[in-house]
Amino acid sequence: MTLSELFAPTDPAFSEAMSTLLEIFHHSDDSQAPYQHQLFAQRLNQSHLPPVGLTLENYLARLATVIPGSSHLASPCYMGHMTAPLPAFTAELSRLVVMLNQNPMKMESSRLLSFLEREVLAKLHRLIYRADDLFYDQQMHAKDAALGVMTSGGTIANVTALWLARNRTCGDNLFALYEQGYRGAVILGSRLMHYSFDKGMDLLGLGAHNVWRLATDEQNRLCLTALEQALLRCKEEKIRVLALVGVAGSTDFGSIDPLPTLAAIAKREQIHFHVDAAWGGPTLFSPRYQSLLEGIELADTVTLDGHKQLLVPLGTGMLLCRQPDLMMAVKREAPYAIRATSFDQGRFTLEGTRPANALYLDAAFQLFGLQGYAELIEANYDRARLMAALIRDDPAFELMSEPVMNLLSYRCIPPHLRGKPLDEAANEQLNAFNVALQKAQRAEGHSFVSRTQRTVLRYGDQPLTLLRAVLLNPHIREQHIQQVLADQQRLGSQIASQLFGGSNGDG
Amino acid sequence: MTLSELFAPTDPAFSEAMSTLLEIFHHSDDSQAPYQHQLFAQRLNQSHLPPVGLTLENYLARLATVIPGSSHLASPCYMGHMTAPLPAFTAELSRLVVMLNQNPMKMESSRLLSFLEREVLAKLHRLIYRADDLFYDQQMHAKDAALGVMTSGGTIANVTALWLARNRTCGDNLFALYEQGYRGAVILGSRLMHYSFDKGMDLLGLGAHNVWRLATDEQNRLCLTALEQALLRCKEEKIRVLALVGVAGSTDFGSIDPLPTLAAIAKREQIHFHVDAAWGGPTLFSPRYQSLLEGIELADTVTLDGHKQLLVPLGTGMLLCRQPDLMMAVKREAPYAIRATSFDQGRFTLEGTRPANALYLDAAFQLFGLQGYAELIEANYDRARLMAALIRDDPAFELMSEPVMNLLSYRCIPPHLRGKPLDEAANEQLNAFNVALQKAQRAEGHSFVSRTQRTVLRYGDQPLTLLRAVLLNPHIREQHIQQVLADQQRLGSQIASQLFGGSNGDG
Repeated sequence: MTLSELFAPTDPAFSEAMSTLLEIFHHSDDSQAPYQHQLFAQRLNQSHLPPVGLTLENYLARLATVIPGSSHLASPCYMGHMTAPLPAFTAELSRLVVMLNQNPMKMESSRLLSFLEREVLAKLHRLIYRADDLFYDQQMHAKDAALGVMTSGGTIANVTALWLARNRTCGDNLFALYEQGYRGAVILGSRLMHYSFDKGMDLLGLGAHNVWRLATDEQNRLCLTALEQALLRCKEEKIRVLALVGVAGSTDFGSIDPLPTLAAIAKREQIHFHVDAAWGGPTLFSPRYQSLLEGIELADTVTLDGHKQLLVPLGTGMLLCRQPDLMMAVKREAPYAIRATSFDQGRFTLEGTRPANALYLDAAFQLFGLQGYAELIEANYDRARLMAALIRDDPAFELMSEPVMNLLSYRCIPPHLRGKPLDEAANEQLNAFNVALQKAQRAEGHSFVSRTQRTVLRYGDQPLTLLRAVLLNPHIREQHIQQVLADQQRLGSQIASQLFGGSNGDG
Repeated sequence: MTLSELFAPTDPAFSEAMSTLLEIFHHSDDSQAPYQHQLFAQRLNQSHLPPVGLTLENYLARLATVIPGSSHLASPCYMGHMTAPLPAFTAELSRLVVMLNQNPMKMESSRLLSFLEREVLAKLHRLIYRADDLFYDQQMHAKDAALGVMTSGGTIANVTALWLARNRTCGDNLFALYEQGYRGAVILGSRLMHYSFDKGMDLLGLGAHNVWRLATDEQNRLCLTALEQALLRCKEEKIRVLALVGVAGSTDFGSIDPLPTLAAIAKREQIHFHVDAAWGGPTLFSPRYQSLLEGIELADTVTLDGHKQLLVPLGTGMLLCRQPDLMMAVKREAPYAIRATSFDQGRFTLEGTRPANALYLDAAFQLFGLQGYAELIEANYDRARLMAALIRDDPAFELMSEPVMNLLSYRCIPPHLRGKPLDEAANEQLNAFNVALQKAQRAEGHSFVSRTQRTVLRYGDQPLTLLRAVLLNPHIREQHIQQVLADQQRLGSQIASQLFGGSNGDG
């Protein structure tokens, strides 16, 4: 295409082709795109740009070979990861969000949409902290206030929380800590803390090894005895605790730490209390389940992800702050863009220029309403309980934790180990078996769950391979859950005979 | 809407309404959305979600009040910031990118699109580093290799570069530096380095004050004498230099540091050499201008922004790495997602889950081709030279730097100061005058440039307020440039009489 063609109205055939590709995507299962490393690498191996731009028609031919190779997460048998198909209006709204190309880092390149972003953040602040109308009237659009910041995702939100916590303690100069007489600095939380905290501590120059991952109880919640011991050790060894992290929806179990107690301990010790609710936050929309998150309102900062359970597109993370002046600890300015006297959100954000994804959240809030999100959450959490019941009742499976939200970890048990006590050797067999099973299911492509490696209290310290199901897609019905489990039984039988042969095949 | 309605095909009226809103956006000038803080704050002040989701029709009514308040950067008289209107195909493509909702952090949630991302990065790597075919054949899809990483923007790319540089020096434990006998660590670059470097050094625990912003010459390029002095001082004071930063397109002048010399110095001193080409990188597409960036191929790392001169949507930054194994210095894993044995890009990225924006780049590369980008760059750079000539020839303006790329800084001179020598007092007047002028032009809303505050060599250390034009929109014609300058002359006359009264108005 020539430059002027590129900016002239697009041929309607292109629009129709996008619709067709989306149609295919929404009705495919993963079997159309089995993971074939060599083939994929061969198909996309060009390091040259074309000398002259292709026609739209020729580019469509390329897209038609690329898009079907994507991961078909719209399939209700795809239960593997934390992304979902999006509500239909999103497709049309994306045209608007993308083409407006607003940059809410600064008012001059986003105007009213900067205010929209603040309004969206206020709504989520209220969901978590439930302050009164006067508070929001005064703070929502106040100059040196931020009820939160938008980020590209949960990782940057968690990193921002640690950044805040560190700068409140010792500014951007770590040696100030040493001048205060400390020998080091750590963050405390459960072993199930997201790996972004390690990345954050690495980034902040404090060392990933200073993420102290403490033991959990039988419900995968941070163990309070372990926490008190860690705090004591820090005092004895003159180590500064920068933050206490509470997990509200662990990535593998959906477990929730005892937030009210953690809040009380953080207050007693005068430590920044951060809650990672990237997955679990929207539980607050459900009258039936919201009590699970009791205590979250006591957190100094809370991470949320719009692109997880709020069903907006990827790239929509947030950090919410109880106190509107908290973000001043990381305030920065730039002469050409972010003036000290300005109202710009860019003064506080780790990122600079970024898209106006708050518009997706605004649309979802208005169109789902409180009731829509409540229904979505409750249906998904109920489905997890249904799946857990099916697993519990079937000797071919072992449920590895009771359902809390809509994340389940379990194992498939090959015939010869069913009903047997599972010792270390048996667990080794189970690990190999479940890795092979997950890979086989992924390669076949009709249904999909992910896998993880964790310890589970009743088996001590032995790392176990677990299958991991995420029940986020609102199209999942009982039949799809049955399909996933049936595929695993079928593939499991084949794998068991390959791995363990006839001699062990006593089932 | 109910949950099932939200996932059913959207009423075509919604699609039409989006087209109408976009139509209005593309044909508006900023006068439809003057910046009215109080009004904006009042219009969006709801901290409650609606109890029940609105109908699409009602939500459209809300959008119709919000969208016209956005910044109308599609207007060819909007020359203020670094975002542009996007080529028309982007609107339709966005439906696909957004609805596929692929997460290239991990293969299991993006499949072939992970390979597409690697292909896109290889194309940009070749643009910068011009390695041979064999190199790309071997490295593009190699397991422990990354020709670069995608980021949400230039800030995260610059931060990632510093993170890499630091971890190559002392890992994630800053105290290792002290054990090596150093008393501190700095990065060196010109005073025109982007403010994300301060943010990065703050974040990394090294202190924003350890960004040493060195003097520049009359062409706003890092002064080599100042650099050698700084290096000497670091040796004398046992300070470790983590990185030398070269600017390829400063945000206010479009100036370019002497990259070949900086590369040689970095090599001599064994320092990580990073080039921030977020703005200037695409200059390489132009046969006529590419020699400006000579030496960039010697950088260890280079920051690019797709959403600047490559004209893809916001949220598309990149860090390119000369050596494919460089990113191993920041490699991280997670049991449920990013396995050590995996091929996943998520092992290296600062961010975790993120959108597959590489697809926008792929489309732009295929549809623009080398020639399209060359035309775009050359037309824009030529327009800047035209604008500079108009400013130079008019005593009502002062050009503050010669055009290098397509960024210009200049001042408007009120009648009583035209043709006079400008001393410190005059410059004070000029600062107040140009601030008022930029605000008046912004408030009126027919045309727009931004403003910045910088020193300029011929006026010594006095901070000067400069008007700043960014010539990125391909629809800008001479008439629009004249319009911007005419608006400034007209508003300038009014402001001059208000500020300086009749007594000084001798023009």
